[in-house]
Amino acid sequence: MARSRSFWGWGYEDKLPGDNARRALASRLAALTGTPPELAPLPSLDAVTMPEPRYTVPVELRSIGTTDKRERAIHTYGRGYRDLVRGFRGDYASAPDWIFHPTEEEHLLSLFRFCERESIALVPYGGGTSVVSGVEFAASGRFRGVACVDLSRMDKVLSVDEISRSAHIQAGATGSKIAEQLETYGLTLRHYPQSFELSTLGGWIATRAAGHYATLYTHIDDFVESVRMVTPAGVFETRRLPGSGAGPSPDRLVLGSEGAFGIITEAWLRVQPRPRWRASASVSFDRFEDAVDVVRILAQSGLNPVNCRLLDAGEAMLHQVDSEGNAVLLLAFESADHPIETSMERALSIATDLGGRCKEEPKYTTDVIHSIAPRPLHASMTSSRPPPPSSGSVRPPAHDVQEASVWKQAFFDAPYLQSALVLLGMVCDTFETACTWDRFPALHASVVAAANAAMQKVGGGGLLTCRFTHVYPDGPAPYYTFLTKGRPGEELEQWAAIKAAVSEAIVSTGGTITHHHAVGRVHRPWWEKERPALFEKVLVSAKNELDPAGILNPGCLLPIK
Amino acid sequence: MARSRSFWGWGYEDKLPGDNARRALASRLAALTGTPPELAPLPSLDAVTMPEPRYTVPVELRSIGTTDKRERAIHTYGRGYRDLVRGFRGDYASAPDWIFHPTEEEHLLSLFRFCERESIALVPYGGGTSVVSGVEFAASGRFRGVACVDLSRMDKVLSVDEISRSAHIQAGATGSKIAEQLETYGLTLRHYPQSFELSTLGGWIATRAAGHYATLYTHIDDFVESVRMVTPAGVFETRRLPGSGAGPSPDRLVLGSEGAFGIITEAWLRVQPRPRWRASASVSFDRFEDAVDVVRILAQSGLNPVNCRLLDAGEAMLHQVDSEGNAVLLLAFESADHPIETSMERALSIATDLGGRCKEEPKYTTDVIHSIAPRPLHASMTSSRPPPPSSGSVRPPAHDVQEASVWKQAFFDAPYLQSALVLLGMVCDTFETACTWDRFPALHASVVAAANAAMQKVGGGGLLTCRFTHVYPDGPAPYYTFLTKGRPGEELEQWAAIKAAVSEAIVSTGGTITHHHAVGRVHRPWWEKERPALFEKVLVSAKNELDPAGILNPGCLLPIK
Repeated sequence: MARSRSFWGWGYEDKLPGDNARRALASRLAALTGTPPELAPLPSLDAVTMPEPRYTVPVELRSIGTTDKRERAIHTYGRGYRDLVRGFRGDYASAPDWIFHPTEEEHLLSLFRFCERESIALVPYGGGTSVVSGVEFAASGRFRGVACVDLSRMDKVLSVDEISRSAHIQAGATGSKIAEQLETYGLTLRHYPQSFELSTLGGWIATRAAGHYATLYTHIDDFVESVRMVTPAGVFETRRLPGSGAGPSPDRLVLGSEGAFGIITEAWLRVQPRPRWRASASVSFDRFEDAVDVVRILAQSGLNPVNCRLLDAGEAMLHQVDSEGNAVLLLAFESADHPIETSMERALSIATDLGGRCKEEPKYTTDVIHSIAPRPLHASMTSSRPPPPSSGSVRPPAHDVQEASVWKQAFFDAPYLQSALVLLGMVCDTFETACTWDRFPALHASVVAAANAAMQKVGGGGLLTCRFTHVYPDGPAPYYTFLTKGRPGEELEQWAAIKAAVSEAIVSTGGTITHHHAVGRVHRPWWEKERPALFEKVLVSAKNELDPAGILNPGCLLPIK
Repeated sequence: MARSRSFWGWGYEDKLPGDNARRALASRLAALTGTPPELAPLPSLDAVTMPEPRYTVPVELRSIGTTDKRERAIHTYGRGYRDLVRGFRGDYASAPDWIFHPTEEEHLLSLFRFCERESIALVPYGGGTSVVSGVEFAASGRFRGVACVDLSRMDKVLSVDEISRSAHIQAGATGSKIAEQLETYGLTLRHYPQSFELSTLGGWIATRAAGHYATLYTHIDDFVESVRMVTPAGVFETRRLPGSGAGPSPDRLVLGSEGAFGIITEAWLRVQPRPRWRASASVSFDRFEDAVDVVRILAQSGLNPVNCRLLDAGEAMLHQVDSEGNAVLLLAFESADHPIETSMERALSIATDLGGRCKEEPKYTTDVIHSIAPRPLHASMTSSRPPPPSSGSVRPPAHDVQEASVWKQAFFDAPYLQSALVLLGMVCDTFETACTWDRFPALHASVVAAANAAMQKVGGGGLLTCRFTHVYPDGPAPYYTFLTKGRPGEELEQWAAIKAAVSEAIVSTGGTITHHHAVGRVHRPWWEKERPALFEKVLVSAKNELDPAGILNPGCLLPIK
């Protein structure tokens, strides 16, 4: 049975912390807020009002469309802080008029023609987990309504090429759906954004999502072998290629296009066998700065750890991996081909030589059941047809997300926690960037100062924590979490003041406005400071070619035409 | 003293094989051609005629411009097969009228305005090693002349950020110039295209050149941290970032733009310390097909060898690494951080388990002199200023290209050999592609059949060899060399027939028309079959934004406006 999505909060209703958990959270927050915040009742859909749909649809679209209130509420917003607050307040004035669930590309073509004819904005919707208002549009001006196109019924792994280790997948498949379907082949995409259970392949490609790997293959970009996007001007499909130097890469126009050019319907993705050898360790540091140096050297070592997450003391406490005020570096290696002890040993020797402390021995595991014997080779060369899914007897024990460590579970649960904090009236959000190593000290100092000053001003103080989610030879991707006390009714203004301050700090000290949360509508003012002005002109002319009527996701990434 | 460039052939005059070497080559060719081909005299510039320049230039451009005959001849063509033949024949009817050597961006702006005003085509020129007619334009239609812009005087490493391991480099710097300047820091770009001594950073970026690494970091794309391109519409400069997810990547519009959008003037590149540990080995196989399987498994292993070049029997013989009809796999690992024995051992165990034979033990070297002590870390965190270049005493012994193995030397000399073969009347060229592993057997069979049939038809038979230059988890990049006997005066038609046959075979069996030789003018017909039609429309509108008068490199990559 399908689990029920929360109409206003993150994810599934049954995973939102219940009354007791929220009460416990409230008393923990008392340390910050003086008195524990009050436990507000959960929002009720019955209390929500929304305008009647502003248009009717032709019969061929009616079979895939709905104006159901709950569906419209779910699809009104993404799940960023502003979205949670507005949802919690019952503000659904901008609900899309119709929600469409296409099952084939023909439906998209019909929708394009309908929306062009009727001046209706068309918002592509994957998992709806945008934190940058990527799926939200309040019709105005020349748009007399909004159509939300939810791709969730196009969610199949269409075929698997085991020779080239690639899978042909429909864009509406969530991380969970992809994992389930690939598991029968002993394969995995190894792409775990925090939104993994909800977000979709198409959404990942449209927003350049980052995932599992802390190094080397950080973004979905690195796994896309080819992509198919249906645009109002026709189909834009790239060739399956492992690499090419033929002109600018057409894939790269689609990656990050945020629904402004077309709707991604399919892609071939590079996949991998499940790792057989795994190693993990954690290293503590008295000082965050020392750990930063270590992470830089590791990032430049060519060891390419699969996890190289550095948590500052606040993060380490929040995620329950340290309670003594240390910064903690979480290290992991994995391989489907060979043992990785020497890599882990070298990484730990770098870390400990430079002041890190291992609390315990690194943990090594080898999956013996799962070993894949080399396939008969010549046979494999002459056929690209995948064999039938392997039988239950050799099926790997469970998929990787279920093997989550304490850290990983906390990681996937964090967005649920945010929804609970909103219910407690807290202003809390995350933001992230990337910058070169030489600029990190100044950027970090500037962000910390800006966030603390803004939280002081709007909330009388607050908490700010930092971790590195991904690291590169030339720089880290720092990820910040902030938390301050809301003033009832003023939370959005408080949030906006903090967001503006930290965004300004990031962009003025050489960072990117987003390493993996996309531009959407929220980040656009700062993206406009970061990108070459001529590049936006090029993207606008690309939009004019692909979406001449300008119906697609107006105001997302690019200004409204 | 600057060495003298050949006005018609590859590279430097003093490196072209001399009379004796060409005589020896001729007698080796007798095996193929029946009688040894005749030794033609070297082309003479005196015998060359070319039209007078069709325009005059204003005084501010005269100081950076020349109409010197030798300069015009050098800059008329790239150095592909057709270029060598036309140069050898003394066909310089399409020589550019003026050659400009800008030293600063202001010069480019003056050139843009001048060319726009006077309807002159402007062809950006780096090392002039294009094999796809990327730097050649015969003025006609609305263009009343051609200006060639040679970037070779903008060739400095401007600064080095040792913390982030990045270097800020002017686009006109050749591979050799970059290597020389980085060497003083103990750093290297590790990007060695075959044209390394001549080709430039700007050319590499404009054409998405591939280089040193057989896996992982195959193209210059992977090293570009930011780029600056001057266009007729203004400056297009991207931010230095280790990674970002903010909209489509602006760098990727410049990578592969082939001079159609603007002139690349500078870039920040990711650099590395010289490797300290190196390992190399070669593995022989009776059958090419077995070796292909091994290479696929290696490419999917996550071992990421720095060299993983597979030579078929013909290549192995040509490059003097085997004379017994074996396919040979050249394997290498390198690291500046840690020993790589375990990686090499695992790679060799994969190769030998599946039928490969090692003739000798793998060779391991460790550079003890060159060890870089970890830098004082907090000091390094707070300053991005590079220290002065290190003194002679810690200078590494020689740069990597000078440490070339037999294979590497043959690799860098191959283009000189081609010029010598042209002098002997042979039709000989290389072409390359990439495809997914599942498609390789059919693509290879199709290419072999097409090349052999075409050579039979136009030259009574010939030689075709294949190697893999780069490999990916999802497919190889095969590189072919062909050689057949020319009929005097008909060589270009013979070449065109073979080129068309193999290009058609590649594109119709799922390959890309080029993995790293660019599109230029030669590959455009097949690129147009490969790329999404809508993508070309997008690129054309990008060109309209960036180069509204359409003066830049007309007909290269995109059709003439």
